[in-house]
Amino acid sequence: MIDRDQLVRRYLNVAGFRRGAMRVLPRPVFDFTDGAAEDEFTLRRNEAAFHEPALLPRPLQGVGERDLSVELFGRTLSMPVMIGPTGLSGMLWPDGELAAHRAATAAGTAFCLSHASTVPIEALPKAGNRWMQVFVYKDRGFTRSFVDRAAAAGYDALVLTVDNQTLGQRERDVRNGFSIPPKLMLKVMGAMAIRPNWLWRMRERRDFTFANYTGIEGGADRNTLAGRMNALLDPSMSWADVAMLRRQWAGPLILKGILHPGDIEIALDHGVDGVIVSNHGGRQLDRAAAGLDALPAVAEAARGRLKVLLDGGIRRGVDVLIAKAMGADACLIARPQLWGLAVGGEAGVAAVLEILRRDLDRALCLCGVTRFVDADASLLAPGVVSPIKPKAIAA
Amino acid sequence: MIDRDQLVRRYLNVAGFRRGAMRVLPRPVFDFTDGAAEDEFTLRRNEAAFHEPALLPRPLQGVGERDLSVELFGRTLSMPVMIGPTGLSGMLWPDGELAAHRAATAAGTAFCLSHASTVPIEALPKAGNRWMQVFVYKDRGFTRSFVDRAAAAGYDALVLTVDNQTLGQRERDVRNGFSIPPKLMLKVMGAMAIRPNWLWRMRERRDFTFANYTGIEGGADRNTLAGRMNALLDPSMSWADVAMLRRQWAGPLILKGILHPGDIEIALDHGVDGVIVSNHGGRQLDRAAAGLDALPAVAEAARGRLKVLLDGGIRRGVDVLIAKAMGADACLIARPQLWGLAVGGEAGVAAVLEILRRDLDRALCLCGVTRFVDADASLLAPGVVSPIKPKAIAA
Amino acid sequence: MIDRDQLVRRYLNVAGFRRGAMRVLPRPVFDFTDGAAEDEFTLRRNEAAFHEPALLPRPLQGVGERDLSVELFGRTLSMPVMIGPTGLSGMLWPDGELAAHRAATAAGTAFCLSHASTVPIEALPKAGNRWMQVFVYKDRGFTRSFVDRAAAAGYDALVLTVDNQTLGQRERDVRNGFSIPPKLMLKVMGAMAIRPNWLWRMRERRDFTFANYTGIEGGADRNTLAGRMNALLDPSMSWADVAMLRRQWAGPLILKGILHPGDIEIALDHGVDGVIVSNHGGRQLDRAAAGLDALPAVAEAARGRLKVLLDGGIRRGVDVLIAKAMGADACLIARPQLWGLAVGGEAGVAAVLEILRRDLDRALCLCGVTRFVDADASLLAPGVVSPIKPKAIAA
Amino acid sequence: MIDRDQLVRRYLNVAGFRRGAMRVLPRPVFDFTDGAAEDEFTLRRNEAAFHEPALLPRPLQGVGERDLSVELFGRTLSMPVMIGPTGLSGMLWPDGELAAHRAATAAGTAFCLSHASTVPIEALPKAGNRWMQVFVYKDRGFTRSFVDRAAAAGYDALVLTVDNQTLGQRERDVRNGFSIPPKLMLKVMGAMAIRPNWLWRMRERRDFTFANYTGIEGGADRNTLAGRMNALLDPSMSWADVAMLRRQWAGPLILKGILHPGDIEIALDHGVDGVIVSNHGGRQLDRAAAGLDALPAVAEAARGRLKVLLDGGIRRGVDVLIAKAMGADACLIARPQLWGLAVGGEAGVAAVLEILRRDLDRALCLCGVTRFVDADASLLAPGVVSPIKPKAIAA
Repeated sequence: MIDRDQLVRRYLNVAGFRRGAMRVLPRPVFDFTDGAAEDEFTLRRNEAAFHEPALLPRPLQGVGERDLSVELFGRTLSMPVMIGPTGLSGMLWPDGELAAHRAATAAGTAFCLSHASTVPIEALPKAGNRWMQVFVYKDRGFTRSFVDRAAAAGYDALVLTVDNQTLGQRERDVRNGFSIPPKLMLKVMGAMAIRPNWLWRMRERRDFTFANYTGIEGGADRNTLAGRMNALLDPSMSWADVAMLRRQWAGPLILKGILHPGDIEIALDHGVDGVIVSNHGGRQLDRAAAGLDALPAVAEAARGRLKVLLDGGIRRGVDVLIAKAMGADACLIARPQLWGLAVGGEAGVAAVLEILRRDLDRALCLCGVTRFVDADASLLAPGVVSPIKPKAIAA
Repeated sequence: MIDRDQLVRRYLNVAGFRRGAMRVLPRPVFDFTDGAAEDEFTLRRNEAAFHEPALLPRPLQGVGERDLSVELFGRTLSMPVMIGPTGLSGMLWPDGELAAHRAATAAGTAFCLSHASTVPIEALPKAGNRWMQVFVYKDRGFTRSFVDRAAAAGYDALVLTVDNQTLGQRERDVRNGFSIPPKLMLKVMGAMAIRPNWLWRMRERRDFTFANYTGIEGGADRNTLAGRMNALLDPSMSWADVAMLRRQWAGPLILKGILHPGDIEIALDHGVDGVIVSNHGGRQLDRAAAGLDALPAVAEAARGRLKVLLDGGIRRGVDVLIAKAMGADACLIARPQLWGLAVGGEAGVAAVLEILRRDLDRALCLCGVTRFVDADASLLAPGVVSPIKPKAIAA
Repeated sequence: MIDRDQLVRRYLNVAGFRRGAMRVLPRPVFDFTDGAAEDEFTLRRNEAAFHEPALLPRPLQGVGERDLSVELFGRTLSMPVMIGPTGLSGMLWPDGELAAHRAATAAGTAFCLSHASTVPIEALPKAGNRWMQVFVYKDRGFTRSFVDRAAAAGYDALVLTVDNQTLGQRERDVRNGFSIPPKLMLKVMGAMAIRPNWLWRMRERRDFTFANYTGIEGGADRNTLAGRMNALLDPSMSWADVAMLRRQWAGPLILKGILHPGDIEIALDHGVDGVIVSNHGGRQLDRAAAGLDALPAVAEAARGRLKVLLDGGIRRGVDVLIAKAMGADACLIARPQLWGLAVGGEAGVAAVLEILRRDLDRALCLCGVTRFVDADASLLAPGVVSPIKPKAIAA
Repeated sequence: MIDRDQLVRRYLNVAGFRRGAMRVLPRPVFDFTDGAAEDEFTLRRNEAAFHEPALLPRPLQGVGERDLSVELFGRTLSMPVMIGPTGLSGMLWPDGELAAHRAATAAGTAFCLSHASTVPIEALPKAGNRWMQVFVYKDRGFTRSFVDRAAAAGYDALVLTVDNQTLGQRERDVRNGFSIPPKLMLKVMGAMAIRPNWLWRMRERRDFTFANYTGIEGGADRNTLAGRMNALLDPSMSWADVAMLRRQWAGPLILKGILHPGDIEIALDHGVDGVIVSNHGGRQLDRAAAGLDALPAVAEAARGRLKVLLDGGIRRGVDVLIAKAMGADACLIARPQLWGLAVGGEAGVAAVLEILRRDLDRALCLCGVTRFVDADASLLAPGVVSPIKPKAIAA
């Protein structure tokens, strides 16, 4: 019933989908998608960093039909924007992860399932390009079991999130009393009651919780997100764990949450295939550098020896082009796909991807670039590139 | 009835004319003149870039009667501000292009007719200094026919706009349902109904559309501006097309939409006589550099071998002096003349030109400069000039 | 009846006096004191420039009773803040110039009479340290007569304002219909009627006009300030006029309105004794550099061979210390004394001077400096000093 | 009755405690804690300086249980945040200094008693790590007697505040008629009457005044804070006084109020053990550099030869980590503990300390740092560190 192209016309851009999500979701659920750690400085930095670089387009290049495809880890993506891992997508739309996966697959791009999904690892159909995200849990056997399940289910790549040694303090969630599953406090019930469409859609869901954790959810504090996560997370995770995963997992291994260029050489030593430059959308360490600001030094350190991806702050198609010019091979989106999901399920995610594809295509055309992979720093006006240089940083 | 000098006194500055235009135009029409692409960052950059440089005037120079004239392509202009090409000016005032041309001619400066004018190429009287703007259309024969018509009509210079490989996403227009000709949606009719003066003035206009395109306006999507334009535009346009136009057109050939200094040497190789440093008023690629920020590197690359003009963000006479100090030979205005046109037709455009002339004259006097052509970078406080340097840019 | 110290306690700082003046003056008169040219960028720059430098105080220096005195042109001033020339002070308070002169003399500092005063040159009592400001008029004989009158009246120094080749466009005045003398338009009368205290105080004033110009006030446009001034001003004024004045005037000769460091060497060649780094309070060339930003390069060019004074943007005592650290020998205030005058006549000006004296004294004490003349750039945190360097500027 | 952990949950962060204090305190008392000198630029700089540096965390370091302890002057503190000296804490809560001392001791950190405390030096129980702050008074014997009393009472360290040669102009206090003890003006009584909880809590307090000054409080102006303090303070205090205190006091001697790196070598020559980089919370010299901006040059000058502490602007746990990365050994808090005290007495101070401890612990964990003392500049993205370098400063 809901049609992708109608949604594209109605919401027009990612900001439109954000406003739409604010209208359809109960406030605590919207805040869970929108909020970040502490003062949310890093969240704002992520978005603002994209507003600094200035493009110097090259017209008259005889642009052909644009080719947005990128090759990543032996697979071709139709566009350099994939769907990053986001927990609890099922709170926004029934079986949200399945809907987002269908949209990504239809768009010809990759989908990364969160370890904190509301559907089990095995529930995602064997279609398209599927990545699985894992954590290093206190119980390493649990981590290993996730990897085994991902291998058995035929996932294409493994993403190890490394910036969650402990959960960031997300103050909107704390103030909203956000918990997993929702505590039916009066405040929460009130927020839900004024969103009847969401309530009706969710009427069959008995629980909004992690699908992959059965059997390990103990602890006194288990009802809050921080309590639940901190019972699982392990600050002692280290490069030795990367080495362990590398031995266990034969496919592409990607580290998510790298900002420091000094970590690139170590990652290469551990046989890592790619990194995602990320500060977890500002949800972990407030005051961390914006991903885009950290990107040039990381890319310079990598010198093409591993893939450099970026997430955080992508809101326009042209942002993807800017990231490419500053050193990223491709980008992941998180909040934008959640807002699409909240508004229209699979069609919403498809519309967000289509908006980014269309806008990136237009930006390439206007810059005089036919193939996305050919875009480079010559498009950027000097003097606005982030001053973070790898040589100036103690590794 | 409307008198130029009364309008000068009443509106006082370009911002005054903008407010005036907002009052007299239906909102979708005003937004068509005022808006830009996507988040309108580049539009705001254009204006803000002029607020950075600081002038260090030189009094006690014995300033005489100021001479604002500049020589461009063998013709003398009375002032270094000319009227740039703007589409559909006839929506603002009946036969708007003819009115603006009369004002420019009376002021002794040049007028550039847009290919997307509401009057035919041949309708402009043979008076003053007339430039004709063309595009590279999918049908190259169509482009060549425009050039032939411009030659036959005796235009003085040819301006090839190069930054419109595809139409930018102008979100105000999309949200307003702006179309060519206007679809009489309820929303649009409502906006028109509350502007009775405009309606009365326009009562004889049956259509607001392109006068030079008869016979080629097909396509399913023809009612939207993007649909209409994208059916015509050709991303494959290239320097080969410049070469073709150079062979066909004997007079001055100017490229509009250059920002990258690397394009100057190529332009010289193609026999181009001048460039207009421009981002299309921020209406094409949002995130493009401000024209003023891109100007110094372009001027440095040109080293006087071709004329360097600037458009985008000129709102005060002193802006023209700043542009000169940063390397421009002269400037074009677009939105200011549209606001003048909307408020008072020919007299409004004349008033805007007079305001800019008067204010530039005063700025020169206060800076201790008698002849505009003598103003140079020594008037600028160092450290505030744009850091974009040609040597730092891969050509 | 009005007591200086009561006013100090009541208004506390210069911003307090500004608010006070806004309450007591008819709006067109307040705007005449408060406004500046065009968009008032340079006015805001003047104030904002003082907010950039950061002080690194040196405690434990054994500060004694502070000595704020400075020696200027053979005379000692009790404090490095003097009253700069402001036209038409008599509009704010009856015989405003006499009141301000009394306050300055009582405070032990200098007073500079404007050529555009509402009292004649000869009316100022022979007391204190009196400077006379002159212009180069179209009629050089008129200028010479002013100098002769100043010499006959025993003035201590001559200030030649050089940045008024023509009058800046002060848009508040234009919109207010501000004229000399006031045209009794309904709008102006209304603004006056709601300020009964001011009206009562001014009941004996029949005219608010220039006292030194009788016999030369012709011209069609004589009722507007711009018309009046532009009939007198002469853009052709040049260094030759400085040479003429130098021959005619034996005492200290000061140029007001220098911003470009390249003018210092020329001034020295012409026997000039001092310069006032100034942009006329932003009332002439909008977009001119802030005086404080231009100061370091001017001071560096002067190398102590002539006195370097500063006006524009002084609102706090600590501003005077910052100006000293960046190269100024002393400062002049204009708007602050006008606001003091409007609020309390002589007592108001005295209160403004006392506030600046007290606050500068405290700032010196907290910085560990006993004698104002010893404050230097070592108090400033590097990296925040204006980047304007004389070597980088074509002279 | 009030429980620390309840307060932590309720107020969540320091900003929450500030809002709480605004609600419970009469406005003049809140303003006394919250306000600063003149325009409060330096206060805002203090907070804003922490928002500039960007962190580049190092995950995968195998973080163990965090160790936040630091060694200062032979004692171990459980966390690198101690309570700085604040005058008149007893206005916020009965025996406020005793409450804050109990909270600090329970948290395992140090407490510095202000010379301007509302409890006598001897009233603080012999527990924990107690520092005593002194001033150099006009009557040096009085200063010496304070030192003797501190020694007799067994304090662990002596803090000499050096940036109070005279009292800064705190304009909120002046406008509020804030006096010591409070004058019962109608305005003040009104402000108190609408804060009944505070009034009830304070019902037994007959006076809110300095406990250590009996016998010396003369002077006509004694009722205002400035009058009281300026009767005591001595601008002539100098390094000779430091030498005198060094001879008299055998324990650790710390100078509070150092910003200029040139003072470090002199301090070392005088046998000083540590400095507190501070601008007195912006309450003395408005326009002084932010402490954090001044810190790197001071730390570089110190080269580990004396301890470098920082106060001013700490509002988040991560701020302490940023200060460490920029060269501070530990930090002091002032306003945050006052807001805690106002809201909940000892439990409020304990909650503020716990919030900072918890948030610093999390920031370390997320940065991949196990021991606070190991955090260094490699965590900071280059280019955002303050440009103040000791070599560029005349010492």
